[in-house]
Amino acid sequence: MSLNQVMYDYGAQKSSIREIAAYASARKAEVGAGNVFDFSLGNPSVPAPQQVTDAIRRCLALPPQELHGYTPAPGLPSCRQAVAESLNRRFGTAYSGEHVFMTVGAAASLSCTFRALVNPGDEVVVISPYFPEYKVWIECAGATCIEVPAARPSFQPDLDALAAAVTERTKAVVINSPNNPVGVVYTEESLRGLAQVLKDAEERLGTAIYLVSDEPYREIVYGCDVPWVPSIYDRTVVCYSYSKSLSLPGERVGWVLVPPTNPEGAEVFTAVAGAARALGFVCAPALFQRVIEACVDVPADVAAYAENRDLLTSGLAEAGYTYVEPDGAFYLWVQALESDCEAFFRRARALELLPVPSTSFGCDGWVRVGYCVARETIERSMPAWRALAQSYR
Amino acid sequence: MSLNQVMYDYGAQKSSIREIAAYASARKAEVGAGNVFDFSLGNPSVPAPQQVTDAIRRCLALPPQELHGYTPAPGLPSCRQAVAESLNRRFGTAYSGEHVFMTVGAAASLSCTFRALVNPGDEVVVISPYFPEYKVWIECAGATCIEVPAARPSFQPDLDALAAAVTERTKAVVINSPNNPVGVVYTEESLRGLAQVLKDAEERLGTAIYLVSDEPYREIVYGCDVPWVPSIYDRTVVCYSYSKSLSLPGERVGWVLVPPTNPEGAEVFTAVAGAARALGFVCAPALFQRVIEACVDVPADVAAYAENRDLLTSGLAEAGYTYVEPDGAFYLWVQALESDCEAFFRRARALELLPVPSTSFGCDGWVRVGYCVARETIERSMPAWRALAQSYR
Repeated sequence: MSLNQVMYDYGAQKSSIREIAAYASARKAEVGAGNVFDFSLGNPSVPAPQQVTDAIRRCLALPPQELHGYTPAPGLPSCRQAVAESLNRRFGTAYSGEHVFMTVGAAASLSCTFRALVNPGDEVVVISPYFPEYKVWIECAGATCIEVPAARPSFQPDLDALAAAVTERTKAVVINSPNNPVGVVYTEESLRGLAQVLKDAEERLGTAIYLVSDEPYREIVYGCDVPWVPSIYDRTVVCYSYSKSLSLPGERVGWVLVPPTNPEGAEVFTAVAGAARALGFVCAPALFQRVIEACVDVPADVAAYAENRDLLTSGLAEAGYTYVEPDGAFYLWVQALESDCEAFFRRARALELLPVPSTSFGCDGWVRVGYCVARETIERSMPAWRALAQSYR
Repeated sequence: MSLNQVMYDYGAQKSSIREIAAYASARKAEVGAGNVFDFSLGNPSVPAPQQVTDAIRRCLALPPQELHGYTPAPGLPSCRQAVAESLNRRFGTAYSGEHVFMTVGAAASLSCTFRALVNPGDEVVVISPYFPEYKVWIECAGATCIEVPAARPSFQPDLDALAAAVTERTKAVVINSPNNPVGVVYTEESLRGLAQVLKDAEERLGTAIYLVSDEPYREIVYGCDVPWVPSIYDRTVVCYSYSKSLSLPGERVGWVLVPPTNPEGAEVFTAVAGAARALGFVCAPALFQRVIEACVDVPADVAAYAENRDLLTSGLAEAGYTYVEPDGAFYLWVQALESDCEAFFRRARALELLPVPSTSFGCDGWVRVGYCVARETIERSMPAWRALAQSYR
């Protein structure tokens, strides 16, 4: 083929998550939507808050040239400032709009950040299980993706394993808390330990190691605090998206924050801007930058997810499953009832249960059950979960 | 620096066009908006049509989860189908939604297309003067950007020069008609000639050469036809955006069309999808995909640009300037009154006239005068244009 084989392969490889979702749709058409229990996707089931709709309506009163015109590449100054001030109110920081680069969602935030930071031959460490697209973006930026398993049974960062994995080629470590797929929130203790590991390595190796904190689920938590990472480790870059907190995944809006704690913060920001330019991101969607400016302090509606979480965990506990107690996000990480999670998945699928096998996230033995679904889906799925457990007895 | 130097440099290099626009803003604050004549940008001055606002309002009646949810990566099937059917009505083609990949605007369309097509070491030919970001996207895809000057005085493709520039490394030729910065529309004769050059080269070299047709200005024309390129050359990929035709530049929505005339069309489409994934484009903004579906046949409002064009050309002709008669887009390509267009620009700037020197587009001796401005800007600028001409007598 005369085309670019790498890009062709990325296009041809189906995401296993999307394949399961596609199977679910087809199966629903076959046997009825109420008889298929699709736990595959991370598409928010909670609607965007009314304030988003109100903000869109208010925007329509602006002159269309102004509303829909190009914004500066880093975003509307007023939107960037609103984001910075909201962070300052919440975390006692002193950021300004100059530290915020508005992006076309978290995928763009991460893709641009990796391109900005790494050079060919560099390594970027991820903690497995992890969101599989990290590897695509890291490799496309020219770096190698190094997987370091999380500690068991807590699924917090394994500090010894991380210390052993960091080399003179390590340019960054990616963390994701609240975590997809596990649902844990990294404790302050974990993060302080991780910061120490990185500082020690920087000193020992004479290098700079960035902590890339991917935080789309920051607002989706069940009564626990999510520590503010740049207050713990200076060389942190935060990648955010409103896909989950405001239920806007299709609108593609988020940001990269390069806090001034970074010794080379201005240079990192410039490189993020350069990456956005080089990849073909001209600006984040203009209307939704204005929506974000208006809704920057609107709380995420966590109540429905909390209800689903309780329903799912109590039901699965009763049926005898082992899972990681979720602190945040909207995923339950459930131990497969045999070591081969793909085989377990196939047996679940035969009962119309559709979680995602953990092999999609870089480890075996588990499945991810997304509970960003209708409450009825969880309720009606319980006999199948019980039958599945029964089939292993 | 430990960061990626290439990305840092892209971020640090200011676009000369954006620098002139920034100077214009600062200067307006100093001497009054009415006394500065900013012809630098290509930001549409015509508002988005009422149908766009109406479509957004109608969308707000949808359940927010549906409206703002992820769409499939290539776009909403109904939107893709609407785009295909609109093209079929206009060009007598038989496309389906399967041939259309919705993108985050023309920059994304081009960036993904180059990544899909080229391998390191390949060459992509552009016709100078040309939109300067082409070079960024071509080089970031790993290819070399080969500049071939347009024919003079027509600024149509120079077929002999193109034939001489095509080598066994040539993977694609980029055309842009209606042209930014010159305003010419490539004639059917030019395009047939170009197609023959490429077919001959393919046969001689045993390679595949793609024609990448960048068409954001297709709808902005003044009484002339814009030939449909895939009907002339099989191996064509069309890149489109609604930034100009519907005045939505900040909303970032467009498409890549891989017509089935392409011998490897399905593979090209897959590679475009893979590139979109690898670069971090998850989907085109969901709300605006629905807006496009509703407005796919809404005509561009060309009347105001046509009026500006007439006003500007007659005024400059009277003042003794030489320019290329614009068939389309909203730029007038005016010969500088000295060979060094930067020196000419500085003299214009001293009179508060702010066009863009042609060095920004890869050639010397001209300036681009963007007439997507208020009519009054053109009217009030005329004494300055006359004084500028006078100063060279």
